[in-house]
Amino acid sequence: MSAHTEYLWMETPERRGFVNLTDRVRAIVARSGVWDGLVLVSAMHITAAVYVNDAEPGLLDDIAAWADRLAPPGDYAHHRTGEDNGDAHLKNLLLGHQVLLPVTRGELDLGPWEQVYYAEFDGRRRKRVIVKVLGLGRPTDAASPA
Amino acid sequence: MSAHTEYLWMETPERRGFVNLTDRVRAIVARSGVWDGLVLVSAMHITAAVYVNDAEPGLLDDIAAWADRLAPPGDYAHHRTGEDNGDAHLKNLLLGHQVLLPVTRGELDLGPWEQVYYAEFDGRRRKRVIVKVLGLGRPTDAASPA
Amino acid sequence: MSAHTEYLWMETPERRGFVNLTDRVRAIVARSGVWDGLVLVSAMHITAAVYVNDAEPGLLDDIAAWADRLAPPGDYAHHRTGEDNGDAHLKNLLLGHQVLLPVTRGELDLGPWEQVYYAEFDGRRRKRVIVKVLGLGRPTDAASPA
Repeated sequence: MSAHTEYLWMETPERRGFVNLTDRVRAIVARSGVWDGLVLVSAMHITAAVYVNDAEPGLLDDIAAWADRLAPPGDYAHHRTGEDNGDAHLKNLLLGHQVLLPVTRGELDLGPWEQVYYAEFDGRRRKRVIVKVLGLGRPTDAASPA
Repeated sequence: MSAHTEYLWMETPERRGFVNLTDRVRAIVARSGVWDGLVLVSAMHITAAVYVNDAEPGLLDDIAAWADRLAPPGDYAHHRTGEDNGDAHLKNLLLGHQVLLPVTRGELDLGPWEQVYYAEFDGRRRKRVIVKVLGLGRPTDAASPA
Repeated sequence: MSAHTEYLWMETPERRGFVNLTDRVRAIVARSGVWDGLVLVSAMHITAAVYVNDAEPGLLDDIAAWADRLAPPGDYAHHRTGEDNGDAHLKNLLLGHQVLLPVTRGELDLGPWEQVYYAEFDGRRRKRVIVKVLGLGRPTDAASPA
């Protein structure tokens, strides 16, 4: 059994932005040596989301508009602290904080349209995403049938 | 440590539908031989959800109506691709893409009302759900106290 | 590889309430002996949520108000069973049923503001949360480089 951890740094140029993490997660899985297991991709800040969905640009616009409709910018109790990002906290809850992806035969085991996204709602600063792979290494020749 | 993976094929007769996966997941856990660990149940398509809640029929109606209220069918940017399922993508995000269930002493370790559901929002075609069990096998007699 | 499971009992004095579980989860991770792995924190009832966000009191008010706006108390089909907690089921789906936290070098590997919360929406009775840690133990001296 092995575990492998890497951290991705995010810094979107605008307050909001979507970043497709799929290829970076795929590369981390390859470096991990895990053959059969799970990989956690989780935001380390609570004003960004990590979710799985399609990489279609129109859909990204739809997701942004939908999150704004259900968790609009506005006047939140949280703003008494001097912050102005109450809506970003709620969007994290709406879209989700993390995903857990299966690794099978050394590869991300995803359906045809599944892509892992980082959705930033309070960017223009450096934030981290943790990627932790846990699972079994590749079976050795010794363990394979002759 | 062992890992075990199976895929469930879904094909709801209507565009929308709920399928209780609990017994199928339970059977996969039994076949896995995992005694203490975790089982991931995750949609492989992004227009269906996997969630845990109650198996009460009235509640299924409530969940369907609620998802329609918060993520209604309508005119989405995603539809410029020729698709008409923008609302189904948003419902996946609302209800969740996956669940991770604990396995203890070889059984799903669920509370009294917890059931695993597949919620389809763009059905009438074949889609997959991945079920991956990861954990320790049953302790051998040799490892037990005398 | 090792696995370690504990159950937390919750009983909020009011129908609704937030409980910060972070320190309890941290203590369970310490008792587990897991050095590198994952810890699942999952509600065992479907009218409470487990999520990660900030421990700021104003934000807790915002989350409660937001959940009430998107999943209001009201007349649900589920209530034909005699229950009156339909909104609590939907709030579980909105905020999430569970989280999976990384464990690195024997500690919860969280960002600066990440806290694990239990959000009760139908309290005044005893309910459980399961905490299961899965991962590798501390490397032994024998395995370390000389």
